[in-house]
Amino acid sequence: MSRSEISRAARLLMRHTGLFKLGPECSSAAVVGTRSKFTHSKEGKVLHPDLLNAAVLKTQYAVRGELYLRAEELRKAGKEIIFTNVGNPHALGAKPMTFPRQVASLCIAPFLLERPDVETLFPKDAITRAKKILAAFKGGVGAYTDSRGNPLIREEVAKFFEERDGVPSNPDHVFLTDGASVAVRMCLNAVIRDENDGILVPIPQYPLYSASIQLYGGTLVPYYLDETKNWALSIDSLKKSVKDARAQGKHVRAMVFINPGNPTGQCLSEENLKELIKFAYDEQIVLMADEVYQENVYQDERPFISARKVMHAMGEPYRSSVELVSFHTVSKGAGGECGLRGGCMEMTNIHKGAIEEIYKCASINLSPNTMGQISISCLVNPPKPGDDSYEQYNKERTEELASLRRRAHMVTNAFNNLEGVTCNFTEGAMYSFPRIRLPPKAIEAAKKMGKAPDVLYCLRLLEATGISTVPGSGFGQEEGTFHLRTTILPREEVMNTFVSKFSDFHQKFIKEFS
Amino acid sequence: MSRSEISRAARLLMRHTGLFKLGPECSSAAVVGTRSKFTHSKEGKVLHPDLLNAAVLKTQYAVRGELYLRAEELRKAGKEIIFTNVGNPHALGAKPMTFPRQVASLCIAPFLLERPDVETLFPKDAITRAKKILAAFKGGVGAYTDSRGNPLIREEVAKFFEERDGVPSNPDHVFLTDGASVAVRMCLNAVIRDENDGILVPIPQYPLYSASIQLYGGTLVPYYLDETKNWALSIDSLKKSVKDARAQGKHVRAMVFINPGNPTGQCLSEENLKELIKFAYDEQIVLMADEVYQENVYQDERPFISARKVMHAMGEPYRSSVELVSFHTVSKGAGGECGLRGGCMEMTNIHKGAIEEIYKCASINLSPNTMGQISISCLVNPPKPGDDSYEQYNKERTEELASLRRRAHMVTNAFNNLEGVTCNFTEGAMYSFPRIRLPPKAIEAAKKMGKAPDVLYCLRLLEATGISTVPGSGFGQEEGTFHLRTTILPREEVMNTFVSKFSDFHQKFIKEFS
Repeated sequence: MSRSEISRAARLLMRHTGLFKLGPECSSAAVVGTRSKFTHSKEGKVLHPDLLNAAVLKTQYAVRGELYLRAEELRKAGKEIIFTNVGNPHALGAKPMTFPRQVASLCIAPFLLERPDVETLFPKDAITRAKKILAAFKGGVGAYTDSRGNPLIREEVAKFFEERDGVPSNPDHVFLTDGASVAVRMCLNAVIRDENDGILVPIPQYPLYSASIQLYGGTLVPYYLDETKNWALSIDSLKKSVKDARAQGKHVRAMVFINPGNPTGQCLSEENLKELIKFAYDEQIVLMADEVYQENVYQDERPFISARKVMHAMGEPYRSSVELVSFHTVSKGAGGECGLRGGCMEMTNIHKGAIEEIYKCASINLSPNTMGQISISCLVNPPKPGDDSYEQYNKERTEELASLRRRAHMVTNAFNNLEGVTCNFTEGAMYSFPRIRLPPKAIEAAKKMGKAPDVLYCLRLLEATGISTVPGSGFGQEEGTFHLRTTILPREEVMNTFVSKFSDFHQKFIKEFS
Repeated sequence: MSRSEISRAARLLMRHTGLFKLGPECSSAAVVGTRSKFTHSKEGKVLHPDLLNAAVLKTQYAVRGELYLRAEELRKAGKEIIFTNVGNPHALGAKPMTFPRQVASLCIAPFLLERPDVETLFPKDAITRAKKILAAFKGGVGAYTDSRGNPLIREEVAKFFEERDGVPSNPDHVFLTDGASVAVRMCLNAVIRDENDGILVPIPQYPLYSASIQLYGGTLVPYYLDETKNWALSIDSLKKSVKDARAQGKHVRAMVFINPGNPTGQCLSEENLKELIKFAYDEQIVLMADEVYQENVYQDERPFISARKVMHAMGEPYRSSVELVSFHTVSKGAGGECGLRGGCMEMTNIHKGAIEEIYKCASINLSPNTMGQISISCLVNPPKPGDDSYEQYNKERTEELASLRRRAHMVTNAFNNLEGVTCNFTEGAMYSFPRIRLPPKAIEAAKKMGKAPDVLYCLRLLEATGISTVPGSGFGQEEGTFHLRTTILPREEVMNTFVSKFSDFHQKFIKEFS
């Protein structure tokens, strides 16, 4: 068979059957017929970047991409870096909440519990909680738990979802994971069968989604949030995306939405969620509700309401049929315990057999980490009125959320005061996503350097000020618009410095390229 | 195009090019042309077990399979279960080592460090270590670290590898992970491009490997360990496996070996490792050295020696060219800290570009958990002579390893005393893998029930005694032989009960089916 005969037969087959797919080695014409035949490079390397899994190679992950790597270099060289590239509150000075840390330290050091003076060291409710957890963890925190997480903590999580939504939850439909990212990835890995399976993802989006969909070989089906309407989620835009994807032969199987939004910060209204659930029902699409910022809300018009609660309030046929996975985490909220890697998901209306398949895959890693599980326990079951720690816990939580609300205003106001910059108010989550109108000369200069214009802007910002951000191109943006994502996490006492450094840079940048 | 024309064209294409592969939906003839067209089941489910990723569906994971699920059911129903199905020492009563837990509790509760009486609560070296770690973790344990893990701890790991092997290691070639399983999976995901890529895996093997290779769409190329020679790894058998796989068009790209062996317990000699490294060099295969049981050695003829050390001692061309990834963990050894999920890998002679690709994939999950990282720090950099905790640390470690050595003898002796059972001595790791000669009637009975004969045996053992094991079929075994894996982890004080329960059951089982 000649090369051209092969190509023709392949095209025919694909057109007529949809059953064949090009191997990843065909992604570039230059390597057709060669790459897959090699097991090692000229230098003799098997693990050579040209010879790895094509899905790995094409995966992009912006949050820790070029900007982050350059920031790390500068940091090593002694430059002071303000890391606002990732929602990592403790790294910028947020303090951990006391109660969860007390419980955690007692659980990992049970010999403290045996001290006769333990009650002078720890409040009673932390001691009681640690004892309860240790009684439920056979072998303590050093033993593997069930691969879905410890049953006691899954019960606490189920109770949290029940109280939050007014609807019972089954602990066997709750998984605890090493951060919510792992839970998201488990679902995506199960639902994506091949590149014909499409997942609806908001644009701009959190790159976990684009990266994981690439890695698992599916297709990201974008739906655009409307920047002119405060990043609103429009059902018409969703329907158009599904229609377009289907016209291209894609099976749209799941939809991700992020509420409050990352990187956009918008909070969805109950009405909007209803439409979205109706849409999922009509189109038979699994809903993946990324609600990890549910505590982080900085306006009062649209308080957080979960998709799960809305769906149940809608009654039949929605409440019993829409497939919904809800994600939560200890990394965000007032606690911001990113490093402990505690995440969870709750599955509503998911087929028992599918849950079993996901359980099986979770089993390969044996067990989520126990300290993350314990931090989830403290998140979903915090001190209650009357408990020794209640007042302090509440104070710490309220103050941190109030401070974040102030900072949301400080950051977005500062952006809106800059020439050529507009920024929707950060209604929730931890980020601002300003639109930067770059001068044509800056765009030209970037092109000459082979960089996206917003990458150039962010790199220059980093070099000039030490402020580490992520260019909008990492999240997706409407063609011809440029953004960046920064967190609102610098502490209030340094926020003025942050703002003035940013403003100075911006003015100089615009001047230089005008 | 008719169905038969399509098939013919497909076969031709595959034969002539190797460039096309069947989509996973073609794995069963019954669903050709149908499954991929459905996005939801008759009941309207998207996440339906018939409609998930085919690689997820075909993945098998025995350690938490049918036996484990049944054991969980019995436990919930009130039966006392002895979980020897997984190497989980704390669950069976092993105590955590004190020093690492002291350091961990101070790191997660830094307010303890601020107490004026902290030195009455914790030894000085634990305090110093915690302060050093906290100084290196900007934001403490609640902040994400670099996606490869904290730089200080990666330096400590590199130093450990340097001292262990007499060869420097680069901290940038060290990754910290949520358990060693995650590290193994990162490598497999990068190296496997499609089903034509083969990974050499010992049989019997630890199911992490078979499951992950299935999930990533590669091909497991088995090489058989020789039970009659104490589970020896024979290079001739390896060469035969590679030859056979290549004859079937497979690219053999990597080789896993487990030393000390899991589930087989054998320890490799330096001579054997030399042959193995030469083999990897000759065949241009990446070596994946699963050395997580390096502390768990119960004989003195063949103390643990790392592949990394042997390879460097062999000189050129091996030391500068064989691609080697070495894995280690806090879950095993004397500490047995399974629940904290602290793992690491060291990459020797791996292409910089490949390391960057793996780094990028690690970034999608942002950061390994910090408490696992701290436990790795204590493992690789334990108290030194002269430190306050040295004596206690050493005593705890030595006693636990000595007790494990006694238990290795107790368990294997007990098996060898049973009629129709033979068991190689557990030279290392945490498992015994006895061969059970099942009566023909038992084999028949199992076939009637649609179960593997060793599954029947293990289920009956579980029901009768509460002892939870894993059937040999989950690890792979020579056709017609039957085994089971049990850990040697029941504490010495309950080992006699364990042994007598097992013996009673075995005798009754043999009698019943004779």
